[in-house]
Amino acid sequence: MKINGWIALAMTPVIWACSGDGSTPEGSPASEQAFVLAPAPPMGFNTWNRFACDVSEELVRGIADAMVESGMRDAGYEYLVIDDCWQVERGPDGVIVADPERFPSGIEALADYVHGRGLKFGLYTDAGSKTCQGRPGSLDYEEVDAATYAAWGVDYVKLDWCYADTLNAPVQYRKFREALDGTDRDIVLSICEWGRNLPWEWAPEVGQLWRTTGDIWDSWQSVLWILEANNRHHEVAGPGHWNDPDMLEVGNGGMTLEEYRSHFSLWAIMAAPLMAGNDLREMTPEIRDILTNADVIAVDQDPLGVQGKVVLDRGYGFQVWAKPLADGSVAVALLNLRDSEIEGYVSWHLLGLDPGEARVRDLWTGEESSHTDDGSWDARLRAPVPGHGVVMLRVTPVAG
Amino acid sequence: MKINGWIALAMTPVIWACSGDGSTPEGSPASEQAFVLAPAPPMGFNTWNRFACDVSEELVRGIADAMVESGMRDAGYEYLVIDDCWQVERGPDGVIVADPERFPSGIEALADYVHGRGLKFGLYTDAGSKTCQGRPGSLDYEEVDAATYAAWGVDYVKLDWCYADTLNAPVQYRKFREALDGTDRDIVLSICEWGRNLPWEWAPEVGQLWRTTGDIWDSWQSVLWILEANNRHHEVAGPGHWNDPDMLEVGNGGMTLEEYRSHFSLWAIMAAPLMAGNDLREMTPEIRDILTNADVIAVDQDPLGVQGKVVLDRGYGFQVWAKPLADGSVAVALLNLRDSEIEGYVSWHLLGLDPGEARVRDLWTGEESSHTDDGSWDARLRAPVPGHGVVMLRVTPVAG
Repeated sequence: MKINGWIALAMTPVIWACSGDGSTPEGSPASEQAFVLAPAPPMGFNTWNRFACDVSEELVRGIADAMVESGMRDAGYEYLVIDDCWQVERGPDGVIVADPERFPSGIEALADYVHGRGLKFGLYTDAGSKTCQGRPGSLDYEEVDAATYAAWGVDYVKLDWCYADTLNAPVQYRKFREALDGTDRDIVLSICEWGRNLPWEWAPEVGQLWRTTGDIWDSWQSVLWILEANNRHHEVAGPGHWNDPDMLEVGNGGMTLEEYRSHFSLWAIMAAPLMAGNDLREMTPEIRDILTNADVIAVDQDPLGVQGKVVLDRGYGFQVWAKPLADGSVAVALLNLRDSEIEGYVSWHLLGLDPGEARVRDLWTGEESSHTDDGSWDARLRAPVPGHGVVMLRVTPVAG
Repeated sequence: MKINGWIALAMTPVIWACSGDGSTPEGSPASEQAFVLAPAPPMGFNTWNRFACDVSEELVRGIADAMVESGMRDAGYEYLVIDDCWQVERGPDGVIVADPERFPSGIEALADYVHGRGLKFGLYTDAGSKTCQGRPGSLDYEEVDAATYAAWGVDYVKLDWCYADTLNAPVQYRKFREALDGTDRDIVLSICEWGRNLPWEWAPEVGQLWRTTGDIWDSWQSVLWILEANNRHHEVAGPGHWNDPDMLEVGNGGMTLEEYRSHFSLWAIMAAPLMAGNDLREMTPEIRDILTNADVIAVDQDPLGVQGKVVLDRGYGFQVWAKPLADGSVAVALLNLRDSEIEGYVSWHLLGLDPGEARVRDLWTGEESSHTDDGSWDARLRAPVPGHGVVMLRVTPVAG
């Protein structure tokens, strides 16, 4: 048995397939750095989806503690990122000043606390003159801000695109990347211009992840639209540089558990950054079980680094998504977009596998079984899929 | 001004990019024949969507007359195809027999009538042992049926995939294509296995069109699902061989006029075969105006033969679709998947056009205007798009 078709893609240094105007040659320090910063999709937590502007050092410390105590850190969630509204103004020296009421101990002390819990620390800013919430942006302060963040111990910067309409996105994001490179710290750059300026063409050379769509919201409709939009750029992703379909809404209350499992499963199939966005201090066990499912996270973080894609869409609300993995197995999601249960199916042919026997693990139930697909239609693997739900499998060919 | 990016695709003999196991060399008679049979996506009418099994020679004659009188024929609708249920059994010689009650004059006489109205004539059969409605299929009768159809004057065969689960789709469809090639008639082959057997990999060498999805139904949800599924295979389509997202539901009553306009516009952007499926004998003027819009049909039938695709998807229900045309212009659909009006936009950059002035024609209102996009965000073209609606434009760069 062998995997057909996928390997060529996986072995291609996909970063160089991009048509941006970057001049970084293959094997240069910049490309090695990009790889080292995000060999797998970044995982962590970001304040925005649940807390918006209601951020404070108390909240961040509580989240850091919760990441450790809930098992999120051990499951792989590494970055704790404060989104918009931590900053209020620039000082006379141009250095950005954190909100003194909400962050009385200062950002550096907070970063120390986060680091002390075995986590990494991230901040939000904006490439334009202001952030989306009207706080000072980084335009014309790129070097000052990069140096400030590095001095504070920042490991991750999310760079937004409000108040930036007249700017050139590749130029501006590259400028910030160069400012980060001028510091003595390795800092992940998260590019957030919402897919407006064809980032898939230039962002792989500039940041570790780039948004492909407008903001997610806590609704099944949003998940569906983002799935389709993000899937279109699957060829561009790879170790060091990832499409970002936006942060997770799992646990925020707007979807059913079935829908949250689908959301999380498909983000994993798409090798998406997994940034939790719920209140980790008061998760239900069901939500924690979704976010910390080791089998699903392993699909997301697989070292082959291929973004899975739709391999079959019958046009009536049933899709098969697949992601080849480093050990020769294939992760599969049978996705039911309809409201009621349907019978899903998948053939080894669809997965690029030769006919024969394979071990099949259901990543949500943990059940293991064996299935033989000899290539005939009747021999395909079938399973009921609940409405808005997935059956997520790992199919491992049995050598023979 | 020039068109970037698209031309390389358009100039590639895309049929040879397919990974099927066909041995037809470039420039062979078979490839020339495929081109001649369908240099542009086939257009016509098919009985199934509106009439299902309720077919008869009276109906077909009435539709033929209506195609002439309504202006459909002059708008480009050429094939009149009878779908399932015209046949009842095989005679002792193995020749298929039409239903004597519903087609008392016989199929040959009916084909003559259709030809006499300046149209071409098509029939449905099935690659398996039975048709989907249980009538005799063509399995093991491929040569007999091809010879029969040719003798009757058939110009188009739709070959379905029911009762065929144990068969090999590329093998079986190729067998039928060869049977058709063994006759003295040029006959279009419409492959209908619903995207189950990865037809985009082999069907371009076998048929002129192939379905990419399950059956359409007369609902906005069906249109949306099919759009996404069919868009995934845009690279494969080209003159002589087309992705088929299924026949039109325009005028069948399950969608609003706005939704039908979107359905028709996007089928044209996708260079889809345009097979009307409504009762042409009693169309409203509004429906006829949709189906016979010459500007939109010209987009579908454009000789460059590129299947348009999604060029921007913001992940909140706004998509930009674009199709480059032979004269250097680009057809654009701003599509609003949401229920209420939004402001759509498009930049020349998204269309692969250089900054500058262009003529812009709204293909549904007929309005002409000029717009200059200098590359800045504020200079993009903006237009309100109604819920579930499109704004469809033809953008023609002004040389300078």
